[in-house]
Amino acid sequence: MPALEAYKRELDYSYAPGLFPSLEAMTKRPELVRRLLVSSKGRESAGVQKLTGLAEEKGVRVEIADKALARVSGKDNCFAAAVFEKRPLPLDGGSDHIVLHHISDQGNLGTILRTALGFGYHDIAVIRPAADVYDPKVVRSSMGALFSLRVTEYGDFSDYRQEFPDHAAYPFMLDGSVQMDDAAENAPHPCALIFGNEGAGLPPEFQRVGQPVRIPSSDEVDSLNLAIAAAIGMYAFRRR
Amino acid sequence: MPALEAYKRELDYSYAPGLFPSLEAMTKRPELVRRLLVSSKGRESAGVQKLTGLAEEKGVRVEIADKALARVSGKDNCFAAAVFEKRPLPLDGGSDHIVLHHISDQGNLGTILRTALGFGYHDIAVIRPAADVYDPKVVRSSMGALFSLRVTEYGDFSDYRQEFPDHAAYPFMLDGSVQMDDAAENAPHPCALIFGNEGAGLPPEFQRVGQPVRIPSSDEVDSLNLAIAAAIGMYAFRRR
Repeated sequence: MPALEAYKRELDYSYAPGLFPSLEAMTKRPELVRRLLVSSKGRESAGVQKLTGLAEEKGVRVEIADKALARVSGKDNCFAAAVFEKRPLPLDGGSDHIVLHHISDQGNLGTILRTALGFGYHDIAVIRPAADVYDPKVVRSSMGALFSLRVTEYGDFSDYRQEFPDHAAYPFMLDGSVQMDDAAENAPHPCALIFGNEGAGLPPEFQRVGQPVRIPSSDEVDSLNLAIAAAIGMYAFRRR
Repeated sequence: MPALEAYKRELDYSYAPGLFPSLEAMTKRPELVRRLLVSSKGRESAGVQKLTGLAEEKGVRVEIADKALARVSGKDNCFAAAVFEKRPLPLDGGSDHIVLHHISDQGNLGTILRTALGFGYHDIAVIRPAADVYDPKVVRSSMGALFSLRVTEYGDFSDYRQEFPDHAAYPFMLDGSVQMDDAAENAPHPCALIFGNEGAGLPPEFQRVGQPVRIPSSDEVDSLNLAIAAAIGMYAFRRR
Protein backbone atom coordinates (compact mmCIF):
# COMPACT_ATOMS: atom_id res chain seq x y z
CA MET A 1 0.00 0.00 0.00
CA PRO A 2 1.42 3.42 -0.95
CA ALA A 3 2.02 6.28 1.52
CA LEU A 4 -1.16 7.74 2.97
CA GLU A 5 -2.34 10.93 1.33
CA ALA A 6 -4.52 13.72 2.67
CA TYR A 7 -8.03 12.72 1.66
CA LYS A 8 -9.36 13.63 -1.73
CA ARG A 9 -12.34 12.36 -3.65
CA GLU A 10 -10.28 10.48 -6.23
CA LEU A 11 -8.74 8.12 -3.68
CA ASP A 12 -10.25 4.67 -3.32
CA TYR A 13 -9.82 4.81 0.45
CA SER A 14 -10.64 7.30 3.21
CA TYR A 15 -10.24 7.85 6.94
CA ALA A 16 -12.55 7.52 9.91
CA PRO A 17 -10.94 10.01 12.31
CA GLY A 18 -11.56 9.63 16.03
CA LEU A 19 -12.03 6.76 18.43
CA PHE A 20 -15.75 6.32 18.02
CA PRO A 21 -15.86 6.41 14.20
CA SER A 22 -12.84 4.05 14.05
CA LEU A 23 -14.55 1.67 16.44
CA GLU A 24 -17.66 1.71 14.27
CA ALA A 25 -15.58 0.92 11.17
CA MET A 26 -13.78 -1.89 12.94
CA THR A 27 -16.89 -3.51 14.38
CA LYS A 28 -19.42 -2.95 11.58
CA ARG A 29 -17.32 -3.24 8.42
CA PRO A 30 -13.97 -4.78 9.42
CA GLU A 31 -13.54 -6.12 5.87
CA LEU A 32 -13.12 -2.52 4.68
CA VAL A 33 -10.42 -1.52 7.16
CA ARG A 34 -6.94 -1.55 5.62
CA ARG A 35 -4.97 -0.16 8.55
CA LEU A 36 -5.47 1.46 11.91
CA LEU A 37 -3.50 4.61 12.70
CA VAL A 38 -2.94 5.48 16.35
CA SER A 39 -1.07 8.35 17.98
CA SER A 40 1.88 7.81 20.29
CA LYS A 41 0.16 10.10 22.81
CA GLY A 42 -3.11 8.18 22.87
CA ARG A 43 -1.53 4.74 22.75
CA GLU A 44 -2.21 3.88 26.39
CA SER A 45 -5.77 5.21 26.49
CA ALA A 46 -8.58 2.73 27.05
CA GLY A 47 -10.20 3.62 23.74
CA VAL A 48 -7.05 3.02 21.72
CA GLN A 49 -6.38 -0.21 23.62
CA LYS A 50 -9.81 -1.45 22.72
CA LEU A 51 -9.26 -0.52 19.09
CA THR A 52 -5.87 -2.18 18.81
CA GLY A 53 -7.25 -5.30 20.49
CA LEU A 54 -9.97 -5.43 17.86
CA ALA A 55 -7.46 -4.81 15.09
CA GLU A 56 -5.37 -7.75 16.26
CA GLU A 57 -8.45 -9.96 16.36
CA LYS A 58 -9.46 -8.98 12.83
CA GLY A 59 -5.94 -9.07 11.42
CA VAL A 60 -5.75 -5.33 10.75
CA ARG A 61 -2.30 -3.74 10.79
CA VAL A 62 -1.76 -1.05 13.44
CA GLU A 63 0.65 1.86 12.91
CA ILE A 64 1.86 4.59 15.21
CA ALA A 65 1.44 7.55 12.86
CA ASP A 66 1.31 10.95 14.56
CA LYS A 67 1.99 12.99 11.45
CA ALA A 68 -0.44 11.12 9.24
CA LEU A 69 -3.13 11.45 11.92
CA ALA A 70 -2.66 15.19 12.20
CA ARG A 71 -2.77 15.46 8.41
CA VAL A 72 -5.88 13.38 7.82
CA SER A 73 -7.87 14.68 10.79
CA GLY A 74 -6.74 18.31 10.62
CA LYS A 75 -6.38 18.14 14.41
CA ASP A 76 -3.50 17.68 16.81
CA ASN A 77 -5.38 15.63 19.35
CA CYS A 78 -6.75 12.85 17.17
CA PHE A 79 -5.93 9.53 18.85
CA ALA A 80 -6.88 7.15 16.07
CA ALA A 81 -8.19 6.80 12.53
CA ALA A 82 -9.22 3.72 10.60
CA VAL A 83 -8.09 3.72 6.97
CA PHE A 84 -10.98 2.18 5.08
CA GLU A 85 -11.79 1.18 1.55
CA LYS A 86 -14.58 3.10 -0.15
CA ARG A 87 -17.07 0.54 -1.38
CA PRO A 88 -20.64 1.57 -2.13
CA LEU A 89 -23.40 -0.82 -1.10
CA PRO A 90 -26.48 -1.14 -3.31
CA LEU A 91 -29.67 0.09 -1.67
CA ASP A 92 -32.24 -2.43 -0.48
CA GLY A 93 -35.23 -2.27 -2.81
CA GLY A 94 -37.67 -3.32 -0.11
CA SER A 95 -36.72 -0.68 2.47
CA ASP A 96 -37.50 3.00 2.88
CA HIS A 97 -34.93 5.31 1.31
CA ILE A 98 -33.56 8.69 2.26
CA VAL A 99 -32.69 10.66 -0.88
CA LEU A 100 -30.38 13.64 -0.44
CA HIS A 101 -30.38 15.98 -3.42
CA HIS A 102 -27.40 18.33 -3.83
CA ILE A 103 -26.56 18.56 -0.12
CA SER A 104 -23.47 20.72 0.10
CA ASP A 105 -22.51 20.94 3.76
CA GLN A 106 -20.36 18.14 5.17
CA GLY A 107 -21.60 18.61 8.72
CA ASN A 108 -25.23 18.46 7.58
CA LEU A 109 -24.61 15.32 5.57
CA GLY A 110 -22.89 13.59 8.49
CA THR A 111 -25.62 14.62 10.93
CA ILE A 112 -28.32 13.37 8.55
CA LEU A 113 -26.57 9.98 8.24
CA ARG A 114 -26.41 9.67 12.02
CA THR A 115 -30.05 10.68 12.42
CA ALA A 116 -31.18 8.27 9.68
CA LEU A 117 -29.53 5.38 11.50
CA GLY A 118 -31.03 6.61 14.77
CA PHE A 119 -34.51 6.32 13.30
CA GLY A 120 -33.92 3.00 11.61
CA TYR A 121 -33.31 4.06 8.00
CA HIS A 122 -30.43 2.13 6.43
CA ASP A 123 -30.59 3.16 2.78
CA ILE A 124 -29.30 6.49 1.57
CA ALA A 125 -29.15 7.82 -1.98
CA VAL A 126 -26.90 10.83 -2.48
CA ILE A 127 -27.62 12.79 -5.66
CA ARG A 128 -24.56 14.65 -6.90
CA PRO A 129 -23.21 17.31 -6.99
CA ALA A 130 -23.06 16.89 -3.24
CA ALA A 131 -20.71 16.74 -0.30
CA ASP A 132 -18.66 13.53 -0.38
CA VAL A 133 -20.07 10.88 1.99
CA TYR A 134 -16.60 9.38 2.36
CA ASP A 135 -14.93 12.65 3.35
CA PRO A 136 -13.36 12.24 6.82
CA LYS A 137 -15.33 15.28 8.05
CA VAL A 138 -18.58 13.63 7.02
CA VAL A 139 -17.53 10.32 8.55
CA ARG A 140 -16.70 12.08 11.79
CA SER A 141 -19.89 14.09 12.00
CA SER A 142 -21.86 10.91 11.20
CA MET A 143 -20.14 9.39 14.27
CA GLY A 144 -19.33 6.44 12.07
CA ALA A 145 -22.98 5.81 11.12
CA LEU A 146 -21.70 5.44 7.55
CA PHE A 147 -20.49 1.93 8.44
CA SER A 148 -24.00 0.78 9.32
CA LEU A 149 -25.65 2.20 6.21
CA ARG A 150 -26.02 1.34 2.55
CA VAL A 151 -25.07 4.49 0.65
CA THR A 152 -25.04 4.95 -3.11
CA GLU A 153 -24.17 8.10 -5.01
CA TYR A 154 -26.08 8.95 -8.21
CA GLY A 155 -25.21 11.47 -10.90
CA ASP A 156 -28.81 12.54 -11.27
CA PHE A 157 -32.17 12.01 -9.57
CA SER A 158 -33.51 10.27 -12.69
CA ASP A 159 -30.80 7.60 -12.34
CA TYR A 160 -32.02 6.86 -8.84
CA ARG A 161 -35.68 6.94 -9.88
CA GLN A 162 -35.11 4.57 -12.78
CA GLU A 163 -33.66 2.02 -10.40
CA PHE A 164 -36.45 2.41 -7.83
CA PRO A 165 -39.55 3.58 -9.69
CA ASP A 166 -42.00 2.05 -7.23
CA HIS A 167 -40.97 3.75 -4.01
CA ALA A 168 -43.68 6.19 -2.91
CA ALA A 169 -41.82 9.49 -3.22
CA TYR A 170 -42.16 12.35 -0.74
CA PRO A 171 -40.18 15.45 -1.71
CA PHE A 172 -39.91 17.86 1.23
CA MET A 173 -40.68 21.36 -0.05
CA LEU A 174 -41.60 24.63 1.66
CA ASP A 175 -44.65 24.82 -0.61
CA GLY A 176 -45.48 21.10 -0.55
CA SER A 177 -49.18 20.57 -1.07
CA VAL A 178 -49.72 18.05 1.73
CA GLN A 179 -49.01 18.49 5.42
CA MET A 180 -46.28 16.05 6.47
CA ASP A 181 -48.18 14.31 9.27
CA ASP A 182 -51.14 13.55 7.03
CA ALA A 183 -48.85 12.18 4.36
CA ALA A 184 -46.88 10.14 6.89
CA GLU A 185 -49.99 8.52 8.31
CA ASN A 186 -51.02 7.18 4.93
CA ALA A 187 -47.64 6.46 3.40
CA PRO A 188 -47.18 2.97 1.95
CA HIS A 189 -44.05 0.85 2.30
CA PRO A 190 -41.50 1.31 0.90
CA CYS A 191 -41.19 5.05 0.53
CA ALA A 192 -38.48 7.56 -0.38
CA LEU A 193 -38.09 10.78 1.62
CA ILE A 194 -36.38 13.39 -0.54
CA PHE A 195 -34.54 16.41 0.87
CA GLY A 196 -32.92 19.25 -1.08
CA ASN A 197 -30.02 21.64 -0.82
CA GLU A 198 -29.44 23.83 2.27
CA GLY A 199 -30.04 27.12 0.50
CA ALA A 200 -32.10 26.37 -2.56
CA GLY A 201 -34.18 23.41 -1.40
CA LEU A 202 -35.49 21.06 -4.09
CA PRO A 203 -35.92 22.49 -7.60
CA PRO A 204 -39.54 23.18 -8.68
CA GLU A 205 -39.77 20.08 -10.91
CA PHE A 206 -40.02 17.98 -7.75
CA GLN A 207 -43.56 19.32 -7.44
CA ARG A 208 -44.36 16.63 -10.02
CA VAL A 209 -42.57 13.82 -8.17
CA GLY A 210 -44.80 11.73 -5.90
CA GLN A 211 -46.47 13.74 -3.14
CA PRO A 212 -44.66 16.93 -2.11
CA VAL A 213 -44.97 17.49 1.62
CA ARG A 214 -44.39 20.46 3.90
CA ILE A 215 -43.40 20.44 7.54
CA PRO A 216 -45.93 22.41 9.58
CA SER A 217 -44.03 25.31 11.08
CA SER A 218 -44.45 28.90 12.14
CA ASP A 219 -44.24 31.65 9.54
CA GLU A 220 -41.89 33.42 11.94
CA VAL A 221 -38.99 31.54 10.36
CA ASP A 222 -38.08 31.33 6.71
CA SER A 223 -37.27 27.65 6.89
CA LEU A 224 -35.75 25.13 9.23
CA ASN A 225 -32.10 24.09 9.13
CA LEU A 226 -31.79 21.21 6.65
CA ALA A 227 -30.53 18.60 9.13
CA ILE A 228 -33.41 19.55 11.43
CA ALA A 229 -36.02 19.33 8.68
CA ALA A 230 -34.68 15.95 7.58
CA ALA A 231 -34.80 14.70 11.17
CA ILE A 232 -38.40 15.78 11.64
CA GLY A 233 -39.37 14.14 8.35
CA MET A 234 -37.60 10.89 9.17
CA TYR A 235 -39.16 10.85 12.61
CA ALA A 236 -42.69 11.46 11.33
CA PHE A 237 -42.51 8.76 8.68
CA ARG A 238 -40.92 6.16 10.93
CA ARG A 239 -43.87 6.21 13.35
CA ARG A 240 -46.36 4.87 10.86
CA MET B 1 -20.46 55.41 22.02
CA PRO B 2 -16.90 54.12 22.33
CA ALA B 3 -15.03 52.30 19.53
CA LEU B 4 -16.49 48.91 18.69
CA GLU B 5 -14.68 45.98 20.25
CA ALA B 6 -14.50 42.37 19.20
CA TYR B 7 -17.35 40.72 21.06
CA LYS B 8 -16.87 39.43 24.56
CA ARG B 9 -19.35 38.41 27.20
CA GLU B 10 -18.74 41.44 29.43
CA LEU B 11 -19.91 43.93 26.80
CA ASP B 12 -23.46 45.27 27.10
CA TYR B 13 -23.88 45.09 23.32
CA SER B 14 -23.27 42.53 20.61
CA TYR B 15 -23.42 42.06 16.85
CA ALA B 16 -25.86 40.39 14.49
CA PRO B 17 -23.55 39.53 11.59
CA GLY B 18 -25.04 39.01 8.14
CA LEU B 19 -27.90 40.48 6.17
CA PHE B 20 -30.62 38.20 7.42
CA PRO B 21 -29.80 38.42 11.15
CA SER B 22 -29.41 42.21 10.84
CA LEU B 23 -32.76 42.46 9.11
CA GLU B 24 -34.35 40.44 11.90
CA ALA B 25 -32.83 42.76 14.52
CA MET B 26 -34.00 45.83 12.66
CA THR B 27 -37.56 44.64 12.08
CA LYS B 28 -38.25 42.75 15.32
CA ARG B 29 -36.34 44.72 17.96
CA PRO B 30 -35.38 48.07 16.38
CA GLU B 31 -35.28 49.66 19.84
CA LEU B 32 -32.19 47.54 20.60
CA VAL B 33 -30.21 48.51 17.50
CA ARG B 34 -27.54 51.13 18.21
CA ARG B 35 -25.87 51.21 14.82
CA LEU B 36 -25.80 49.43 11.53
CA LEU B 37 -22.42 48.52 10.04
CA VAL B 38 -22.23 47.97 6.29
CA SER B 39 -19.30 47.11 4.04
CA SER B 40 -18.19 49.34 1.19
CA LYS B 41 -18.28 46.27 -1.08
CA GLY B 42 -21.85 45.32 -0.24
CA ARG B 43 -23.20 48.85 -0.20
CA GLU B 44 -25.03 48.63 -3.50
CA SER B 45 -26.53 45.18 -2.91
CA ALA B 46 -30.29 44.91 -2.63
CA GLY B 47 -30.05 43.44 0.88
CA VAL B 48 -27.90 46.29 2.21
CA GLN B 49 -30.12 48.85 0.48
CA LYS B 50 -33.14 47.39 2.24
CA LEU B 51 -31.31 47.47 5.55
CA THR B 52 -30.13 51.05 5.22
CA GLY B 53 -33.64 52.11 4.17
CA LEU B 54 -35.01 50.54 7.34
CA ALA B 55 -32.26 52.14 9.43
CA GLU B 56 -33.18 55.55 8.09
CA GLU B 57 -36.83 54.94 8.87
CA LYS B 58 -36.05 53.87 12.45
CA GLY B 59 -33.44 56.57 13.05
CA VAL B 60 -30.52 54.11 13.31
CA ARG B 61 -27.07 55.43 12.36
CA VAL B 62 -25.38 53.67 9.43
CA GLU B 63 -21.60 53.36 9.16
CA ILE B 64 -19.35 52.08 6.41
CA ALA B 65 -17.03 49.94 8.53
CA ASP B 66 -15.10 47.29 6.61
CA LYS B 67 -12.51 46.63 9.30
CA ALA B 68 -14.98 46.45 12.15
CA LEU B 69 -17.17 44.07 10.11
CA ALA B 70 -14.27 41.73 9.39
CA ARG B 71 -13.33 41.83 13.08
CA VAL B 72 -16.76 41.16 14.52
CA SER B 73 -17.84 38.57 11.96
CA GLY B 74 -14.50 36.83 11.57
CA LYS B 75 -15.17 36.85 7.82
CA ASP B 76 -14.08 38.95 4.90
CA ASN B 77 -17.36 38.83 3.03
CA CYS B 78 -19.76 40.04 5.69
CA PHE B 79 -21.91 42.78 4.16
CA ALA B 80 -23.65 44.05 7.29
CA ALA B 81 -24.00 43.71 11.04
CA ALA B 82 -26.45 45.33 13.42
CA VAL B 83 -24.90 46.46 16.70
CA PHE B 84 -27.52 45.71 19.31
CA GLU B 85 -28.00 46.18 23.01
CA LYS B 86 -28.16 43.02 25.12
CA ARG B 87 -31.39 43.17 27.07
CA PRO B 88 -32.90 39.97 28.51
CA LEU B 89 -36.66 39.60 28.33
CA PRO B 90 -38.50 37.87 31.18
CA LEU B 91 -40.14 34.59 30.17
CA ASP B 92 -43.90 34.44 29.80
CA GLY B 93 -45.31 32.43 32.72
CA GLY B 94 -48.27 31.19 30.70
CA SER B 95 -46.32 29.78 27.76
CA ASP B 96 -44.35 26.61 27.19
CA HIS B 97 -40.65 26.95 27.95
CA ILE B 98 -37.54 25.45 26.42
CA VAL B 99 -34.88 24.98 29.10
CA LEU B 100 -31.31 24.48 27.91
CA HIS B 101 -29.01 23.11 30.60
CA HIS B 102 -25.26 23.61 30.12
CA ILE B 103 -25.33 23.69 26.33
CA SER B 104 -21.76 24.35 25.25
CA ASP B 105 -21.76 24.51 21.45
CA GLN B 106 -22.58 27.86 19.86
CA GLY B 107 -23.87 26.34 16.65
CA ASN B 108 -26.17 23.98 18.54
CA LEU B 109 -27.52 26.81 20.65
CA GLY B 110 -28.24 28.97 17.60
CA THR B 111 -29.87 26.09 15.73
CA ILE B 112 -32.05 25.28 18.74
CA LEU B 113 -33.21 28.92 18.98
CA ARG B 114 -34.14 28.91 15.30
CA THR B 115 -35.96 25.58 15.60
CA ALA B 116 -37.83 26.75 18.72
CA LEU B 117 -39.16 29.76 16.86
CA GLY B 118 -40.02 27.54 13.89
CA PHE B 119 -42.24 25.42 16.11
CA GLY B 120 -43.82 28.34 17.93
CA TYR B 121 -41.89 28.34 21.21
CA HIS B 122 -40.96 31.88 22.28
CA ASP B 123 -39.56 31.39 25.79
CA ILE B 124 -36.07 30.07 26.36
CA ALA B 125 -34.27 29.57 29.68
CA VAL B 126 -30.51 29.10 29.39
CA ILE B 127 -28.91 27.52 32.46
CA ARG B 128 -25.26 28.49 32.82
CA PRO B 129 -22.46 27.58 32.39
CA ALA B 130 -23.47 27.63 28.75
CA ALA B 131 -22.64 29.12 25.38
CA ASP B 132 -23.51 32.83 25.30
CA VAL B 133 -26.84 33.48 23.55
CA TYR B 134 -25.63 36.92 22.55
CA ASP B 135 -22.43 35.73 20.94
CA PRO B 136 -22.39 36.79 17.26
CA LYS B 137 -21.83 33.15 16.22
CA VAL B 138 -24.98 32.11 18.08
CA VAL B 139 -26.94 35.04 16.65
CA ARG B 140 -25.84 34.09 13.16
CA SER B 141 -26.62 30.40 13.49
CA SER B 142 -30.02 31.31 14.98
CA MET B 143 -30.60 33.31 11.75
CA GLY B 144 -31.66 36.18 13.99
CA ALA B 145 -34.36 34.11 15.77
CA LEU B 146 -32.98 35.62 18.98
CA PHE B 147 -34.84 38.84 18.17
CA SER B 148 -38.22 37.10 18.20
CA LEU B 149 -37.65 35.22 21.45
CA ARG B 150 -37.70 35.92 25.15
CA VAL B 151 -34.43 34.56 26.51
CA THR B 152 -33.28 34.59 30.14
CA GLU B 153 -30.04 33.16 31.51
CA TYR B 154 -30.05 31.54 34.95
CA GLY B 155 -27.09 30.63 37.17
CA ASP B 156 -28.69 27.37 38.20
CA PHE B 157 -31.69 25.20 37.33
CA SER B 158 -33.15 25.76 40.80
CA ASP B 159 -33.28 29.52 40.11
CA TYR B 160 -35.40 28.85 37.04
CA ARG B 161 -37.56 26.31 38.82
CA GLN B 162 -38.21 28.62 41.73
CA GLU B 163 -39.57 31.23 39.35
CA PHE B 164 -41.73 28.74 37.41
CA PRO B 165 -42.59 25.91 39.80
CA ASP B 166 -45.86 25.02 38.07
CA HIS B 167 -44.65 24.25 34.57
CA ALA B 168 -45.00 20.52 33.87
CA ALA B 169 -41.35 19.56 33.47
CA TYR B 170 -40.09 17.08 30.87
CA PRO B 171 -36.36 16.40 31.11
CA PHE B 172 -35.10 14.63 27.96
CA MET B 173 -32.86 11.74 29.05
CA LEU B 174 -31.54 8.64 27.30
CA ASP B 175 -32.97 6.58 30.16
CA GLY B 176 -36.16 8.59 30.60
CA SER B 177 -38.93 6.39 31.97
CA VAL B 178 -41.67 7.52 29.59
CA GLN B 179 -41.68 7.36 25.80
CA MET B 180 -41.79 10.89 24.43
CA ASP B 181 -44.90 10.53 22.27
CA ASP B 182 -46.97 9.17 25.16
CA ALA B 183 -45.80 12.00 27.38
CA ALA B 184 -46.47 14.59 24.67
CA GLU B 185 -50.01 13.37 24.12
CA ASN B 186 -50.95 13.92 27.74
CA ALA B 187 -48.85 16.96 28.56
CA PRO B 188 -50.68 19.87 30.18
CA HIS B 189 -50.15 23.53 29.35
CA PRO B 190 -47.80 25.16 30.11
CA CYS B 191 -44.86 22.78 30.09
CA ALA B 192 -41.08 23.02 30.15
CA LEU B 193 -38.97 20.85 27.84
CA ILE B 194 -35.50 20.43 29.32
CA PHE B 195 -32.43 19.47 27.29
CA GLY B 196 -28.91 18.81 28.58
CA ASN B 197 -25.32 19.15 27.48
CA GLU B 198 -24.05 17.74 24.14
CA GLY B 199 -21.74 15.18 25.69
CA ALA B 200 -23.00 14.54 29.20
CA GLY B 201 -26.75 15.01 28.79
CA LEU B 202 -28.71 16.01 31.89
CA PRO B 203 -27.24 15.01 35.27
CA PRO B 204 -28.96 12.07 37.04
CA GLU B 205 -30.81 14.28 39.54
CA PHE B 206 -33.15 15.29 36.70
CA GLN B 207 -34.67 11.82 37.06
CA ARG B 208 -36.54 13.37 39.96
CA VAL B 209 -37.72 16.46 38.06
CA GLY B 210 -41.17 16.14 36.51
CA GLN B 211 -41.49 13.30 34.01
CA PRO B 212 -38.23 12.23 32.32
CA VAL B 213 -38.86 11.28 28.69
CA ARG B 214 -36.85 9.40 26.11
CA ILE B 215 -36.97 9.76 22.35
CA PRO B 216 -37.71 6.41 20.73
CA SER B 217 -34.71 5.59 18.58
CA SER B 218 -32.69 2.68 17.30
CA ASP B 219 -30.05 1.14 19.53
CA GLU B 220 -27.72 1.33 16.54
CA VAL B 221 -26.76 4.84 17.62
CA ASP B 222 -25.52 5.96 20.99
CA SER B 223 -27.60 9.09 21.00
CA LEU B 224 -28.87 11.73 18.61
CA ASN B 225 -27.13 15.03 18.01
CA LEU B 226 -28.43 17.52 20.62
CA ALA B 227 -29.97 20.01 18.18
CA ILE B 228 -31.72 17.09 16.47
CA ALA B 229 -33.05 15.66 19.74
CA ALA B 230 -34.30 19.08 20.82
CA ALA B 231 -36.04 19.53 17.47
CA ILE B 232 -37.80 16.17 17.70
CA GLY B 233 -38.91 16.96 21.24
CA MET B 234 -40.19 20.41 20.38
CA TYR B 235 -42.02 19.02 17.37
CA ALA B 236 -43.67 16.21 19.33
CA PHE B 237 -44.90 18.49 22.12
CA ARG B 238 -46.15 21.21 19.82
CA ARG B 239 -48.64 18.86 18.14
CA ARG B 240 -50.70 18.30 21.25
